[in-house]
Amino acid sequence: MVSGYNVIERLHSIVDARRLLERGLRRVAPSEEVVGIDNALGRVSSRDVYSPMDVPPHDRSVLDGYAARWRDISTASEEAPAVLRVKGRIEIDDPSTYEIGPGESYEVATGSPMPRGADVVVPIEHASPQDGLVYVYKPFPGGYGVSTRGEDLKQGEKVLERGDLVSEWHVGVLASIGVGGVSVWSRLSVGIVSTGQELIEPGEEYRQGKVYASTGRLAASYLRARGVDARYLGVLPDDEAVIRGFILDNVGKFDVIMTTGGTSVGKKDAAIRALASVAEDLIHGLALTPGRPGAIGIVHGKPVMALSGMPVAAISELIAVWDPVYRSLLGRSRPWEPVLKARMARQYSSHPGMVNVVRTRTCIGPRGLIAEPLRVTGSGILSTLVKANSILIVPEDVTGIEEGEEVEVLLTGHLEVCMG
Amino acid sequence: MVSGYNVIERLHSIVDARRLLERGLRRVAPSEEVVGIDNALGRVSSRDVYSPMDVPPHDRSVLDGYAARWRDISTASEEAPAVLRVKGRIEIDDPSTYEIGPGESYEVATGSPMPRGADVVVPIEHASPQDGLVYVYKPFPGGYGVSTRGEDLKQGEKVLERGDLVSEWHVGVLASIGVGGVSVWSRLSVGIVSTGQELIEPGEEYRQGKVYASTGRLAASYLRARGVDARYLGVLPDDEAVIRGFILDNVGKFDVIMTTGGTSVGKKDAAIRALASVAEDLIHGLALTPGRPGAIGIVHGKPVMALSGMPVAAISELIAVWDPVYRSLLGRSRPWEPVLKARMARQYSSHPGMVNVVRTRTCIGPRGLIAEPLRVTGSGILSTLVKANSILIVPEDVTGIEEGEEVEVLLTGHLEVCMG
Repeated sequence: MVSGYNVIERLHSIVDARRLLERGLRRVAPSEEVVGIDNALGRVSSRDVYSPMDVPPHDRSVLDGYAARWRDISTASEEAPAVLRVKGRIEIDDPSTYEIGPGESYEVATGSPMPRGADVVVPIEHASPQDGLVYVYKPFPGGYGVSTRGEDLKQGEKVLERGDLVSEWHVGVLASIGVGGVSVWSRLSVGIVSTGQELIEPGEEYRQGKVYASTGRLAASYLRARGVDARYLGVLPDDEAVIRGFILDNVGKFDVIMTTGGTSVGKKDAAIRALASVAEDLIHGLALTPGRPGAIGIVHGKPVMALSGMPVAAISELIAVWDPVYRSLLGRSRPWEPVLKARMARQYSSHPGMVNVVRTRTCIGPRGLIAEPLRVTGSGILSTLVKANSILIVPEDVTGIEEGEEVEVLLTGHLEVCMG
Repeated sequence: MVSGYNVIERLHSIVDARRLLERGLRRVAPSEEVVGIDNALGRVSSRDVYSPMDVPPHDRSVLDGYAARWRDISTASEEAPAVLRVKGRIEIDDPSTYEIGPGESYEVATGSPMPRGADVVVPIEHASPQDGLVYVYKPFPGGYGVSTRGEDLKQGEKVLERGDLVSEWHVGVLASIGVGGVSVWSRLSVGIVSTGQELIEPGEEYRQGKVYASTGRLAASYLRARGVDARYLGVLPDDEAVIRGFILDNVGKFDVIMTTGGTSVGKKDAAIRALASVAEDLIHGLALTPGRPGAIGIVHGKPVMALSGMPVAAISELIAVWDPVYRSLLGRSRPWEPVLKARMARQYSSHPGMVNVVRTRTCIGPRGLIAEPLRVTGSGILSTLVKANSILIVPEDVTGIEEGEEVEVLLTGHLEVCMG
């Protein structure tokens, strides 16, 4: 036994871990800011947005042609064309105050407001104008070529929800209803450092006994893909004083500090001892697999997460502890990933009393989706994050899942058709 | 008839349209650049990357505990514990040159190389060290607590493919195999302008007869989400000379110019006339629905796309013409979106001789995926891009699709379980 903190006395429930993280995160909670829609792609909306208007705001033509009454052209043929009087032309930016009566029409362009009384547009290719008249040789169904008021969006319809990641489609819809700026959450800043004597940086030559530092980078890019301003700051040695110095120096510069590695109970597990020595509050040891050695501390009121050094364990800690708290802060109820219902391909025994984060391969079978838990030894198996296309979170009170039982998985990759 | 170019004489096949665009794009083809993996998220890989090493590079422990021979502990129990001699401790960064014989063990940490001869790790919680010995009270299966050499990745295994969008998981995997920089394609720059007398900018007050400019922004964010450096440059009036001036001024500043609106055959369709007046080569009128009025021209050797003013038609032109050419330039064979096989919920009649881009709602039914084409009037129905979660592209030689027929759709949104 070395002196100082290095024992996981008991495992803490994920609920307690989330609660402690939330206490810290509430202090650094993101604020709202308004950004122009041209800069909103990939930001997280902080408010519901409703359409202030009907789209289109009036019936309009979706073709170049002649606006007419369906009754007047419903029996038109090559032999007996309908003949309509052309009252003039309605341009796209004309007001919607025109009107036609029986036997009348207006020339319209794509986007022109429909004249009152008209309920069909005869395409220009099927109409012959001559001497103020137009000849129609073919009938068209009522409503043909017309987009009706509010058909696209009704006034008051929700177009963006609090907590939505703003997509390219949202940008288009917001522009079309005249919304030039949108309220989004400021980005939380997270500073991430890897710890470990054995770590070398990618690009350096491989040496016996060394390991390339990947977990800190993986955590940083996981967070960045979910709207966080995460910065990877490099590697620190297994030195309690150095890591403590890093935490104290940076706790003022970032909203959140994360370390990876050195959270277990080995002699060199300096990160957890450094955190324990300065934390006002600490939870170490999570009822989570993988991710058991993770820790959450509060330093100067701010949250510090000591993530596992094993990449998959670190991601598991982010998925099970960080993400629900972060999402609730943003008012987002759904996970970032699509949630799919699937049936288990085989029986799965979970670690009792622990939240299990299970990498699964979900595919489309003849009778719906099938989720197959991947057989993996340890939490170091980084490639399974790419090979798996989904994640199953098994709550602590579930001891096992039967073959064929329905589960919900988070889709992290591409769905494919089941083989064989 | 106004003078000058304003007629779609015949519809051009999508293949011809792609060929002309490709001729222009080849001239401004993206170049390769190497970026650090910390800046690679969301970029498009320009080369296949293979693992230069096995991961892990040697058998290693995934637990804190005692490395042992399975035979020595396979019958251990509370009553008859296995007793092993502890030869010492192997640290994470020690070389993998240790060895044990019968009745021996080493203390190991999470990540330590396994000593030769050992094939199991007894977790520290289930082992009692005393006077140079360790007592084991419980058997563990062979391989327990061990991650074997190459289990995660084999040397020579492909970890990133040419044309892949670099994800957060790729960044982690690349780091773990020591790859510090990755070859990516430079971003194509695209300058986009909307044209139309009737357009006002979002944020301005709505006025009768006006339309908020949304198509240019939608196109810009569609492209940006796919790795293009697309910039939306604002609104121009329906003035052939002004639009021509814009094209000539900007063709040197961007790899590609796009306009939206003014491509139809109405009197004010200035964009197509401006493009026609300066294009060395021009295709106007596409066998595509929606998206018929689209045009592609070559100006000073560079591609200029005149997209429809209707948002959905513009996206259809990007999906059917731009995207396949752009992807082939990047060496990417698959679409950006997941491709799913689904069965048609109902019969669909397509416009004969044209490529049909159909918005569909795909859901998970009891017997697999079901794709339902949305009933929509016109190409102005922007909200369907959000309401639809998938897109079906029907080739020009297909006249219709039967109910129940299998199709491939591109997944653009979230999959849900079918209602009712």
